[in-house]
Amino acid sequence: MKVGIIMGSKSDLPVMQEAIDILKSFNIEVEVDIVSAHRTPEKLFDYGKNAHTRGFSVIIAGAGGAAHLPGMIASLSPLPIIGVPVKSSNSIDGWDSILSILQMPGGVPVATVALNGAKNAGILAAQIIGSSNPLVLDKIIQYKEELKAKVIASSKDLK
Amino acid sequence: MKVGIIMGSKSDLPVMQEAIDILKSFNIEVEVDIVSAHRTPEKLFDYGKNAHTRGFSVIIAGAGGAAHLPGMIASLSPLPIIGVPVKSSNSIDGWDSILSILQMPGGVPVATVALNGAKNAGILAAQIIGSSNPLVLDKIIQYKEELKAKVIASSKDLK
Amino acid sequence: MKVGIIMGSKSDLPVMQEAIDILKSFNIEVEVDIVSAHRTPEKLFDYGKNAHTRGFSVIIAGAGGAAHLPGMIASLSPLPIIGVPVKSSNSIDGWDSILSILQMPGGVPVATVALNGAKNAGILAAQIIGSSNPLVLDKIIQYKEELKAKVIASSKDLK
Amino acid sequence: MKVGIIMGSKSDLPVMQEAIDILKSFNIEVEVDIVSAHRTPEKLFDYGKNAHTRGFSVIIAGAGGAAHLPGMIASLSPLPIIGVPVKSSNSIDGWDSILSILQMPGGVPVATVALNGAKNAGILAAQIIGSSNPLVLDKIIQYKEELKAKVIASSKDLK
Amino acid sequence: MKVGIIMGSKSDLPVMQEAIDILKSFNIEVEVDIVSAHRTPEKLFDYGKNAHTRGFSVIIAGAGGAAHLPGMIASLSPLPIIGVPVKSSNSIDGWDSILSILQMPGGVPVATVALNGAKNAGILAAQIIGSSNPLVLDKIIQYKEELKAKVIASSKDLK
Amino acid sequence: MKVGIIMGSKSDLPVMQEAIDILKSFNIEVEVDIVSAHRTPEKLFDYGKNAHTRGFSVIIAGAGGAAHLPGMIASLSPLPIIGVPVKSSNSIDGWDSILSILQMPGGVPVATVALNGAKNAGILAAQIIGSSNPLVLDKIIQYKEELKAKVIASSKDLK
Amino acid sequence: MKVGIIMGSKSDLPVMQEAIDILKSFNIEVEVDIVSAHRTPEKLFDYGKNAHTRGFSVIIAGAGGAAHLPGMIASLSPLPIIGVPVKSSNSIDGWDSILSILQMPGGVPVATVALNGAKNAGILAAQIIGSSNPLVLDKIIQYKEELKAKVIASSKDLK
Amino acid sequence: MKVGIIMGSKSDLPVMQEAIDILKSFNIEVEVDIVSAHRTPEKLFDYGKNAHTRGFSVIIAGAGGAAHLPGMIASLSPLPIIGVPVKSSNSIDGWDSILSILQMPGGVPVATVALNGAKNAGILAAQIIGSSNPLVLDKIIQYKEELKAKVIASSKDLK
Repeated sequence: MKVGIIMGSKSDLPVMQEAIDILKSFNIEVEVDIVSAHRTPEKLFDYGKNAHTRGFSVIIAGAGGAAHLPGMIASLSPLPIIGVPVKSSNSIDGWDSILSILQMPGGVPVATVALNGAKNAGILAAQIIGSSNPLVLDKIIQYKEELKAKVIASSKDLK
Repeated sequence: MKVGIIMGSKSDLPVMQEAIDILKSFNIEVEVDIVSAHRTPEKLFDYGKNAHTRGFSVIIAGAGGAAHLPGMIASLSPLPIIGVPVKSSNSIDGWDSILSILQMPGGVPVATVALNGAKNAGILAAQIIGSSNPLVLDKIIQYKEELKAKVIASSKDLK
Repeated sequence: MKVGIIMGSKSDLPVMQEAIDILKSFNIEVEVDIVSAHRTPEKLFDYGKNAHTRGFSVIIAGAGGAAHLPGMIASLSPLPIIGVPVKSSNSIDGWDSILSILQMPGGVPVATVALNGAKNAGILAAQIIGSSNPLVLDKIIQYKEELKAKVIASSKDLK
Repeated sequence: MKVGIIMGSKSDLPVMQEAIDILKSFNIEVEVDIVSAHRTPEKLFDYGKNAHTRGFSVIIAGAGGAAHLPGMIASLSPLPIIGVPVKSSNSIDGWDSILSILQMPGGVPVATVALNGAKNAGILAAQIIGSSNPLVLDKIIQYKEELKAKVIASSKDLK
Repeated sequence: MKVGIIMGSKSDLPVMQEAIDILKSFNIEVEVDIVSAHRTPEKLFDYGKNAHTRGFSVIIAGAGGAAHLPGMIASLSPLPIIGVPVKSSNSIDGWDSILSILQMPGGVPVATVALNGAKNAGILAAQIIGSSNPLVLDKIIQYKEELKAKVIASSKDLK
Repeated sequence: MKVGIIMGSKSDLPVMQEAIDILKSFNIEVEVDIVSAHRTPEKLFDYGKNAHTRGFSVIIAGAGGAAHLPGMIASLSPLPIIGVPVKSSNSIDGWDSILSILQMPGGVPVATVALNGAKNAGILAAQIIGSSNPLVLDKIIQYKEELKAKVIASSKDLK
Repeated sequence: MKVGIIMGSKSDLPVMQEAIDILKSFNIEVEVDIVSAHRTPEKLFDYGKNAHTRGFSVIIAGAGGAAHLPGMIASLSPLPIIGVPVKSSNSIDGWDSILSILQMPGGVPVATVALNGAKNAGILAAQIIGSSNPLVLDKIIQYKEELKAKVIASSKDLK
Repeated sequence: MKVGIIMGSKSDLPVMQEAIDILKSFNIEVEVDIVSAHRTPEKLFDYGKNAHTRGFSVIIAGAGGAAHLPGMIASLSPLPIIGVPVKSSNSIDGWDSILSILQMPGGVPVATVALNGAKNAGILAAQIIGSSNPLVLDKIIQYKEELKAKVIASSKDLK
């Protein structure tokens, strides 16, 4: 019950931190690393090949621009891979990040979340673990109740 | 170990059939239904509220245009929800389908796959099950070997 | 003769305030609330199911990103629903907000206005009421005269 | 209780016919005409200026490309105006039709429906009438029940 | 030899000023006014109907969002109409302004220039006058020489 | 009073023929040629440099994809240049054709018409000539009356 | 003086054949293979790592959708890599193919050509070889003369 | 072994400087100039016609908006031409710059890099030289090792 969180560049960390934080709030272990598909292809290769034997349940991969990291990890690993399109400085309003992560060919899926949606990537990783782990499932249910309570409270504030 | 596959309209079936077929090829049970967010909101509500107590591990939801089915099921269920943007006849080249499934707000993720990517939705569902089930994980590993073998064969054909 | 104004998050209020203000300037009663399709689906359900028996003539719903609130209220209510695509912080230049509100399937319309066009949503609600209420229709006619007068004045300023 | 349906060119009729048909099915009177903003500006002017005194409750206007008809009628009339973006032969995948109808400036709303969404324009017109007419409201409620029944039936077919 | 410059709102003046300035630098008379297609349709009508009898050679019309001013003037006047898509505050990155000016139907052209390209609108107006007026044509030729000289100078600066 | 019509490839002729036909219907002389910016740059250069001394009043240039012909002619000639974005087989739905013609830098305008809008390019050329030639202006006025009459007739047909 | 041409799937061959043909017409040796970034990552790795020691001067890589092949080869090889965005059946009008090839991060370029522009990829490969090989450069010069001659001939045809 | 770097305007220099810097770091000679396709067409013509006889191996051309400089140089020169789409102030989020450089017709390629990707243009130019020059190839290999080392270092920092 460990989630691998990787990103193409340290500059993606402010976005990806939300995935780390939400998973920690669910008491799920995370291991964070920088793996660049384009600058460290050997590390990419090792990481992808071995992830499922190193105890990871899910991998979250964030990248921007021509974002190949999530798809290449999905190419190498049988685990579910969650892709976070990052609106990095070299991205065209995020469209390149989204399309190069989402539009994977038949056979090799990447579970794509919203642009800069690292928080949702973390929740989705927890849901994947929760789908076979009742304790984590309960935490998700409780988390959803908290979301609801906040909206109800802000509705009362308004009135 | 059962996957729920729902779609907004029977016209989405030709696309969604690929998810059914690939899951069956992995010997994973599927239950298929039509649930329209816009025409059967009560059924949507019941389906979403009860999915996690009815034995489903994952839900795959396909819809086109202003596609609200995946996101609304994600609103109601703590399970991982996979969204398939369908390029339906009323869709603008698929952009509406993609954006209304992908761009979920913080707190409520939908694992989005490529436009018309129902096959990948099925594989992703199997990977989610496989992340805690070694037998299914092995099937995924084997499936990836078969993909590889086909490419190698077509490469030999070419030469 | 009462208009319901709802939004997915309190952060949408600065945009939606323009609908409140213009309707008040027409002496039309408004009731404002926060209803999140994704975080408070039960409240969404109750709101949509009961709106037409609670004295509302029209509902204005604003939301951003994968904006499901207007369409889901339209699914649940027989009233005319006006959707305001909000360019929220998680939106891709507003395209997701627009497409997920506008592109509703046959059978369930949402009267969509411009991106962040809450003022026009308010005017449209007044026009809907005015279509059977001569007093409100007169106010609309007068409002349009005022718009005209301001342009004529700014034209004189220019010269 | 009469709806005006206008279009920029006779070539828009196949799309706009759906608005005519659905309104007739609700027993709402329609008056259909061709009014071109760009080729018959005088007729546009007369139509817009007089619509509210000729017994119309709502105007539905369909046009494609640089579609100015709905917005110009909205400029001239205090009635609620519904715009149908038509994917005409000279349109760029419908984007021009949508944006030139939807993005009206503050003060002059057009209630925009989906691309080629003439059926929804008709239903929206009925909902506008129904918001002050209980008989029409009941028809809308009944119509929504029929939509539901069809989905339930197709769901049974599937199983 | 007079150019009419109109805009939909006084807020377009900072953009449109460039058209005024460049035409004045060519010693071509300009008459500037605010004409809103959506708020002053009668003025639009009068302006368009009479422009060719009031001594104008060309009309430059700037507007943003669902920009109907250039196309409606083109509907009403036999003169060449130049449209300037303005990236106004309510515009979606300028796409709505461009498409609702550019994509005019067969029969009613608008000579569209770049987004916020009011300077080029002024030069184009001068070129239109210059096509039958050798003195103005000479000024255009001289202007192009000055453009060239500036580039040559900046090239020398660089070295 | 002669209009030059050029295109980047003979395959553009079916689109550009509409400009030829409408100008002939106005009794305006046309001279048609193929000038490729990318394959015959010397011819482009000669054509652009000499157009204003060869008796042309206006040049219409059509091209598709990365369409440089209209802009390069505008670079070389002081005449008004009308650009027709052609939706050629190598174009991405016409977006490349439009943007590479429309978005000219300050100083060098191209009067851009709608995608495949060669007919409007011809009319615009006639309007440019008509702005200093009363006989041609009268033909434009008459042409607009004929457009109107056709719409009125089709409106009668409908009823 | 050998060019490697690879593609992600045999279905890309009809597009990529144009690169093969034009290079053969320049008497440049080509070696064609299928290498799938997502289905044969080990082959991708070997191919990229060894290309520069196997006698290739340039690699041309074609792929569609989330097209990672060109960028991953560029990650692994110091050679110039030419990317051909293929408008494959799973592509969204080619936008995903283009953006996931073009928008490479700083440090790892891919020389991208037009959508389906395999012919130009071949010519570019020849130009790269020609930049240090006068015989090939002469062939390019001759090829450009032939392009010119064809346009001149089609211009004569027209007249 | 000299690279020509040209740009359409001095305002492109901050972007293009990255190409100059990276080439200098490889000890490759650069010659920088301003050549405007639209304001100095004669200089464009001379530059393009003579580049291959002046000792250049590659030309890098940067421009924004309707960016014709790279394509026109490619029209005139047999050398490999690298195009840098610049997100200039008059560009629509860079889309016009990209499409008017990338979408060249068959026969006349431009090696296009990412938006504002001048650094990659410089590296690509070095790779082109390196494809026939082992010393430069070695520098590219070393450069790629340095990229890798930086990522490995930032990964250690993170942990």
